[in-house]
Amino acid sequence: MSIHELLMSEVVPALDKSGGKVTVVGVGQVGMACAFSLITQAVCSELALVDVVADKLRGEMLDLQHGLTYLKNIKIKASTDYEVTAGSKVCIVTAGARQKEGESRLCLVQRNTDIFKSIIPQLIKYSPDTILLIVSNPVDILTYVAQKLSGLPKHRVFGSGTNLDSARFKFHLSQKLNLAPNSTHGWIIGEHGDSSVAVWSGVNVAGVRLRDLNPELGTPNDPDHFDILHKEVINSAYEIIKLKGYTSWAIGLSVSSLVGSIMKNQRQCYAISVNMQGHHGVEEEVYLSLPCIIGENGVTHVIKQTLTAEEVAQLQKSAKTISDVQAGLRF
Amino acid sequence: MSIHELLMSEVVPALDKSGGKVTVVGVGQVGMACAFSLITQAVCSELALVDVVADKLRGEMLDLQHGLTYLKNIKIKASTDYEVTAGSKVCIVTAGARQKEGESRLCLVQRNTDIFKSIIPQLIKYSPDTILLIVSNPVDILTYVAQKLSGLPKHRVFGSGTNLDSARFKFHLSQKLNLAPNSTHGWIIGEHGDSSVAVWSGVNVAGVRLRDLNPELGTPNDPDHFDILHKEVINSAYEIIKLKGYTSWAIGLSVSSLVGSIMKNQRQCYAISVNMQGHHGVEEEVYLSLPCIIGENGVTHVIKQTLTAEEVAQLQKSAKTISDVQAGLRF
Amino acid sequence: MSIHELLMSEVVPALDKSGGKVTVVGVGQVGMACAFSLITQAVCSELALVDVVADKLRGEMLDLQHGLTYLKNIKIKASTDYEVTAGSKVCIVTAGARQKEGESRLCLVQRNTDIFKSIIPQLIKYSPDTILLIVSNPVDILTYVAQKLSGLPKHRVFGSGTNLDSARFKFHLSQKLNLAPNSTHGWIIGEHGDSSVAVWSGVNVAGVRLRDLNPELGTPNDPDHFDILHKEVINSAYEIIKLKGYTSWAIGLSVSSLVGSIMKNQRQCYAISVNMQGHHGVEEEVYLSLPCIIGENGVTHVIKQTLTAEEVAQLQKSAKTISDVQAGLRF
Amino acid sequence: MSIHELLMSEVVPALDKSGGKVTVVGVGQVGMACAFSLITQAVCSELALVDVVADKLRGEMLDLQHGLTYLKNIKIKASTDYEVTAGSKVCIVTAGARQKEGESRLCLVQRNTDIFKSIIPQLIKYSPDTILLIVSNPVDILTYVAQKLSGLPKHRVFGSGTNLDSARFKFHLSQKLNLAPNSTHGWIIGEHGDSSVAVWSGVNVAGVRLRDLNPELGTPNDPDHFDILHKEVINSAYEIIKLKGYTSWAIGLSVSSLVGSIMKNQRQCYAISVNMQGHHGVEEEVYLSLPCIIGENGVTHVIKQTLTAEEVAQLQKSAKTISDVQAGLRF
Repeated sequence: MSIHELLMSEVVPALDKSGGKVTVVGVGQVGMACAFSLITQAVCSELALVDVVADKLRGEMLDLQHGLTYLKNIKIKASTDYEVTAGSKVCIVTAGARQKEGESRLCLVQRNTDIFKSIIPQLIKYSPDTILLIVSNPVDILTYVAQKLSGLPKHRVFGSGTNLDSARFKFHLSQKLNLAPNSTHGWIIGEHGDSSVAVWSGVNVAGVRLRDLNPELGTPNDPDHFDILHKEVINSAYEIIKLKGYTSWAIGLSVSSLVGSIMKNQRQCYAISVNMQGHHGVEEEVYLSLPCIIGENGVTHVIKQTLTAEEVAQLQKSAKTISDVQAGLRF
Repeated sequence: MSIHELLMSEVVPALDKSGGKVTVVGVGQVGMACAFSLITQAVCSELALVDVVADKLRGEMLDLQHGLTYLKNIKIKASTDYEVTAGSKVCIVTAGARQKEGESRLCLVQRNTDIFKSIIPQLIKYSPDTILLIVSNPVDILTYVAQKLSGLPKHRVFGSGTNLDSARFKFHLSQKLNLAPNSTHGWIIGEHGDSSVAVWSGVNVAGVRLRDLNPELGTPNDPDHFDILHKEVINSAYEIIKLKGYTSWAIGLSVSSLVGSIMKNQRQCYAISVNMQGHHGVEEEVYLSLPCIIGENGVTHVIKQTLTAEEVAQLQKSAKTISDVQAGLRF
Repeated sequence: MSIHELLMSEVVPALDKSGGKVTVVGVGQVGMACAFSLITQAVCSELALVDVVADKLRGEMLDLQHGLTYLKNIKIKASTDYEVTAGSKVCIVTAGARQKEGESRLCLVQRNTDIFKSIIPQLIKYSPDTILLIVSNPVDILTYVAQKLSGLPKHRVFGSGTNLDSARFKFHLSQKLNLAPNSTHGWIIGEHGDSSVAVWSGVNVAGVRLRDLNPELGTPNDPDHFDILHKEVINSAYEIIKLKGYTSWAIGLSVSSLVGSIMKNQRQCYAISVNMQGHHGVEEEVYLSLPCIIGENGVTHVIKQTLTAEEVAQLQKSAKTISDVQAGLRF
Repeated sequence: MSIHELLMSEVVPALDKSGGKVTVVGVGQVGMACAFSLITQAVCSELALVDVVADKLRGEMLDLQHGLTYLKNIKIKASTDYEVTAGSKVCIVTAGARQKEGESRLCLVQRNTDIFKSIIPQLIKYSPDTILLIVSNPVDILTYVAQKLSGLPKHRVFGSGTNLDSARFKFHLSQKLNLAPNSTHGWIIGEHGDSSVAVWSGVNVAGVRLRDLNPELGTPNDPDHFDILHKEVINSAYEIIKLKGYTSWAIGLSVSSLVGSIMKNQRQCYAISVNMQGHHGVEEEVYLSLPCIIGENGVTHVIKQTLTAEEVAQLQKSAKTISDVQAGLRF
């Protein structure tokens, strides 16, 4: 008899899979920060990693597995074959050419569309009921691309969008006011990147709207210079890429939080990239970030913010720019 | 338009249910300690409470719900109607007449069997794929009763058994040795109660078997008096019931840990009450505790411990006693 | 040699205490829900329990200790002698006569003041640098009493106040809007009890002020009947006490969250009972709840909400009522 | 008035520091995996990062800070100046030249000793009461170096040692037996690297010693080939470095777990690199890994494992080799 037989008697065969499965496509710095956040915060009970670089993929899988003694016993698998992703509740796509120092997000788009053609249909093949969460940049256009390639209903495809920008905004606000980031409330919407919109009307602490205290808050005339905080948010990605070569930790935690709201049907509110058509006068079928409620079946509701004419104009301008790029895409 | 319509536009209707549902039957001190442990440790994403006392039930539900701001957004429902339990992955039964001061666990059995007749079939009706976790005392017999009443395969019915006794044993060991309880290893098996068996051969720290250091460990001749630790474990329930009227916190955490191993398919090892027939020479169909591996489909494996003749005799004696009681039960 | 000596060699004696110590005075349902929340959420690394009923106290200590195998190795001690509390960073006082069904909070006050005379000086004697967190009802007056009896600076004495009322308010709002309680923002301030104030101007989701959508929100003319939500909050305590005899779980989680903000210097914002003198035109030295920032050294800042004349009048009326009661107190 | 003054009134100035401070020296992949593990698992409430590369350092700090919205409000600071580390309870040193593919750990030693001369005295200058946790490789010799350079008592200097090797061992055992890694027990001791020792006598599940089931377990004659598991552990670092360039996640979690045992005085048992003199017949002052108990004041006890003559010989051989290298070191 083997040790296994000597040690235990079987009542029923062990199950190899569990309901709480999540896939991460791409094991670069962003994908791995997502994966590590997911397992350290016990968001999933099964994790599949996919990448085209077999060596790196196996190395990352082993490195995560060796940490399982300190965590819940999460099943971690990795393969270049998408079969490993079968039955995932959520598929996170981080693969794609990385944004280079100084490169605009829009420049990456066709390169990454081509990459998505080899990814999205494979994910849908093995997990037809999945929710797609796109992280690759430019995230807004690639979420549109993913929806087109997948054919999924729009509530089951969304992008990480300005969830991270909002987190950065809240951090900078919290430093200025010296209180906890999660006691500071503010929302960045629209395009993830240079033309994002800070919704100053919503910035509040304990329900006290800061613009009621200073009507010029966030404008160029603001004596407290809160407008700089939004500029810092916009510059953050560029600055961190310049300093360390990429961004990873905050996007990992941001994604892990989004996935948690799906896995446990939490119905929390996040700024994520969703189909914008019909919202704030946008006529194009583009994906931009708005505050949305996320639950087990994906994006169920979009919050209708009261925006200024200027904010609406900025959203419509982003929509137009993105739509133009989309028109030139070869699928 | 209502505030709801003014505030948000619907993409798709919200889902009312989630995959991670757990039911607790009985909202006495034990049931509520289980429920509170489950939600504070984020073991489930949906919780159903059932009891016959509608007022108490509603009071407990509201009190838990009011704490959700500090937790994940768990859906908590309560009803005297078992329909509220539909689709539960695990059903925990804590209902039953409570063990009185000085009362042996065996005395409670027929009273609680009658109560189970109104509970178990209802649970199975609404959650035919569920796993039953019995906590009511005397737990070993009532697990047998629950299996009979449910008709479920034996890997999907088990009792909390000596998991709590083992936790108490590890705590007492850890105090004697002044290190963390989870760095101290020891197992209590057999009957949950007066005739439980401390498996001294398995007591170890960092893989160092204490009996290798002192062959008389745990015997009446032990100069270090470790035998007292087992006596303390046996007396614990009686002592705490005498002091505060009932036991609750530790059993709540014990049960929450067991359920976590199911919900996330963790395959952890616990001493729980399982069908003992064929193990350690027991011929009767009785439920006693042995170390088992628990995963998403229930109890998959029983660990074969190497026991002394004396330990085996004690198990067989407990089996005989319990079998005799079972023979007298009216279903 | 003892097993201890055979098993391990000492490098340096073990430390018996750690920096993260918290005391809970009173092991009734509220005190124990606080204690259990503190240990299951790893808020403290050392916990001292104090009560006058030695039996109950020891029973609760043992019951918590037996659960430590499933938690971090927290040091839990209990005694009727306050020496056990020495060196606590926070002391939580839950002791006092319990509010009876239908009894107003104000009726309890002299009885509990007398009890506090035997508690507060003892706590200060053994932990002169501690922060006092008062939970006993009527919490606002008893926080005043505790400050007087302790002689501590006002930033180191506060009451749990309307933190729980705010949590209940957010839960009810979240149910009405069908999203997560922690994505719903609203504040209840003023007196913990019948005359609390719902600050409707601050109620928002994703920074969208609900009153901007419906200017009559929360008034008797509100077609969405949100005014009922505040009434439900006020009735909650009475209703739950009627249904189950006491409230426990939500206050436990509420207190645990407050203590966490102190222990980790988190600077989160909570509605707590603080010295109201000089805020919103209140001239009396009374304690009422306002949103405050809490860190390692206690209450450092009070948020200045923009209140309506009606809200201010209610606060001033509560202040007057409380001040009158305080004037009659015998210390 | 500034927004800050309009929004809040000060009761007492905010504290800038908290008791739970940890420093990580070196923001390479290992240092950052440690830092990210520490903050996602809420092990510390204040984190200081130090490195010589200012750009990378600032980039990593910003990236972590931007994730704080999803975590507790941890204070994260970074500087090339060690003043930022003042008052740390634990200082983790990950700096040093990285082990190259195929390079033995011993080759790195003088290079890293020279680097340590610029690190260790600075740490002690600003945190004289700190505990040093060395992670840089070759960890055993560098722990010795750190103790010499710091002058700290031996219980306050230790190396991460074979804690990671033991975690890998448990993972591989768990896969072979198909149960959770934390239900599988096994210890790797001695040198962190090629000559580590697997203590087969301690390998157990639920207290069942696998060697009692198969006396040849782990030997070359083992029909179950468990000896391969130890070889896999030894090869792990080499393999992962070959596959992905470095190891990071598992060492990050391993270190975070060790630090948690200090911060909360948990007294858990880990295999860590400690002064070996006097243990298992080793006469040299070298650091090798043994199971130890770690609490708030550092390493308090060493577990005395019962080793075979062969295992002792291996330890003594490692001690001799390391001692020879140490003799050649220039301080």
